[in-house]
Amino acid sequence: MKIIVDAFGGDNAPLEIIKGCAMAVEKFDDVEIILTGDEEKIKEVAENEQISLERIEIVHAPDVIEMSDHPTELMKSKKNSSMAVGLRLLADGGGDAMISAGSTGAMLTGATLIVKRIKGVKRPALAPVMPNADGKFMLIDCGANADCRPEMLVQFAHMGSVYMKNVLGVENPRVGLANIGTEETKGDELRKETYALLKDEPNLNFIGNFETREIADGGVDVLVADGFTGNIILKTYEGVASMLSGKFKSVFKKNIFNKLGAAVMLKDLNDIKKSMDHNEYGGAPFLGVKKPVFKAHGSSKAITVCNAVKLVREFVSSDVIGKIAEDISGSAETEGEKKED
Amino acid sequence: MKIIVDAFGGDNAPLEIIKGCAMAVEKFDDVEIILTGDEEKIKEVAENEQISLERIEIVHAPDVIEMSDHPTELMKSKKNSSMAVGLRLLADGGGDAMISAGSTGAMLTGATLIVKRIKGVKRPALAPVMPNADGKFMLIDCGANADCRPEMLVQFAHMGSVYMKNVLGVENPRVGLANIGTEETKGDELRKETYALLKDEPNLNFIGNFETREIADGGVDVLVADGFTGNIILKTYEGVASMLSGKFKSVFKKNIFNKLGAAVMLKDLNDIKKSMDHNEYGGAPFLGVKKPVFKAHGSSKAITVCNAVKLVREFVSSDVIGKIAEDISGSAETEGEKKED
Repeated sequence: MKIIVDAFGGDNAPLEIIKGCAMAVEKFDDVEIILTGDEEKIKEVAENEQISLERIEIVHAPDVIEMSDHPTELMKSKKNSSMAVGLRLLADGGGDAMISAGSTGAMLTGATLIVKRIKGVKRPALAPVMPNADGKFMLIDCGANADCRPEMLVQFAHMGSVYMKNVLGVENPRVGLANIGTEETKGDELRKETYALLKDEPNLNFIGNFETREIADGGVDVLVADGFTGNIILKTYEGVASMLSGKFKSVFKKNIFNKLGAAVMLKDLNDIKKSMDHNEYGGAPFLGVKKPVFKAHGSSKAITVCNAVKLVREFVSSDVIGKIAEDISGSAETEGEKKED
Repeated sequence: MKIIVDAFGGDNAPLEIIKGCAMAVEKFDDVEIILTGDEEKIKEVAENEQISLERIEIVHAPDVIEMSDHPTELMKSKKNSSMAVGLRLLADGGGDAMISAGSTGAMLTGATLIVKRIKGVKRPALAPVMPNADGKFMLIDCGANADCRPEMLVQFAHMGSVYMKNVLGVENPRVGLANIGTEETKGDELRKETYALLKDEPNLNFIGNFETREIADGGVDVLVADGFTGNIILKTYEGVASMLSGKFKSVFKKNIFNKLGAAVMLKDLNDIKKSMDHNEYGGAPFLGVKKPVFKAHGSSKAITVCNAVKLVREFVSSDVIGKIAEDISGSAETEGEKKED
């Protein structure tokens, strides 16, 4: 299996990316990596840091798309960027999947325009897997589509279920609709219409509306939202978690007494940290495009990249794409899709 | 000043409500309380608990609207509930303001249908004041209106500014639009249209889009959202904060060593708890109705009720209602309002 990795995406590129790829090939015998990016720089970093490039091929790409670039530049001034080159390679069959920790907007643009949508899929979605009391859940969509119609949310539910089942091994994933109350009549028009569709949808374990107050407690495997709401949930979640963790941290470090007090429970405190760690699940797949495209967290370290490779390996070998295509074409909601596109 | 308090609203009614009212009259010389609810029960509780009812008048209301009742029951089967009686008394001029810790939905229904909107206000909004690094900020709307138009959000911005300035003493309150990116072009259609209106709006310190990742860090005094989004933000905020606090708490109590470790920093840990405490700011005003109506948190204790009285006292004496009416009638956005109603 050939996994393409953007060597110049993310805050810690290229060093941590290259390191992570080397870790991954060592861990997974069946994986080969294609790194895209400035060949000379990649080789230089590998040599300086004594990272083996065995089973890692380099495809040269002189440019980098920056966070400050408009996403559509990927198709224009930045078409020779490591991300664009990787996505074209993927679309042309030069690899089985693509991972980048670079600009989410550019990734989505490229995934949609270069890799292209699965037939019948109205909109691809960005679907991060996040920590909760059960371990993890998927939030879909999380920012790819700010304005959504109910049929799109129904497709998100299907795509998320297929991924959670096949990649993360969740039996019969529980699908919840992110809403401001549990009763069927709650929420805005979009939620009410989506609820009406979801409750009659076959091949879906729809458990009803899900209040975001419960989000950290578990009880849901796939949380469905329009991209605006999903992104609001994600960012509020991250913001509050980081603020509170910061408050505790500063208490623990305040003075020598507190430091000693905290030292006693260091292992337990680290368990909390680990349970909240986004590096654990590696990032977010883009679901709905023809090949596996995976967005690793912007602050990815080597271990994050290695975890991303692990997930993408499952993504490829369990044929999530084929199963999504099957699920979507079997859903009544795709009728009339041609007209809308 | 006469403040009407629903004696039978909230999880800890009537005891904590009555206690809180007694605290308030002791603290504020210019305040008299009118408690609505079952007269016999109120007197019994006061006697048993030795709470003085000096400067506390009781207006009898035999019924209680429960959380499980549909909000509109306030106007039908529960029109003799403590909440409905209180709101009618307020509308008829029998008091200057009304506080309840009861059902939010019923409060909003009653505030809108009994107390009625300020002329020109399209929709009243529920606007809780929440903790952040600056101390506090207002989130408006937070669930009163699931589906909103841009003009409504502009009015929320005005109403929130007037409240924060006059009741909580924030000079020139910074108004942010809750969004998924900071650039003007970010968000869904509702956000883009609202941004376009807000940036040209006079008498408003609009600071642009505000990402909810920063929500706990401060930087905004009035965060504007449609009721669906606002409620999602509020519940995600509360859910994550409570989950994380719970995790730390269970580490602190895990064994004797951890307990000793935590004991060392007890004061600092309590400071965190206090900074996250919703009892501090007492709850949420309903803005846009003709008289001050204030929703105290459902789990209000006596101190919460006392704080609510303090806020409502400012609400009344600084004539927030008059100032909102002035601000709204001065805004171009009210044109054509009659037709829409």
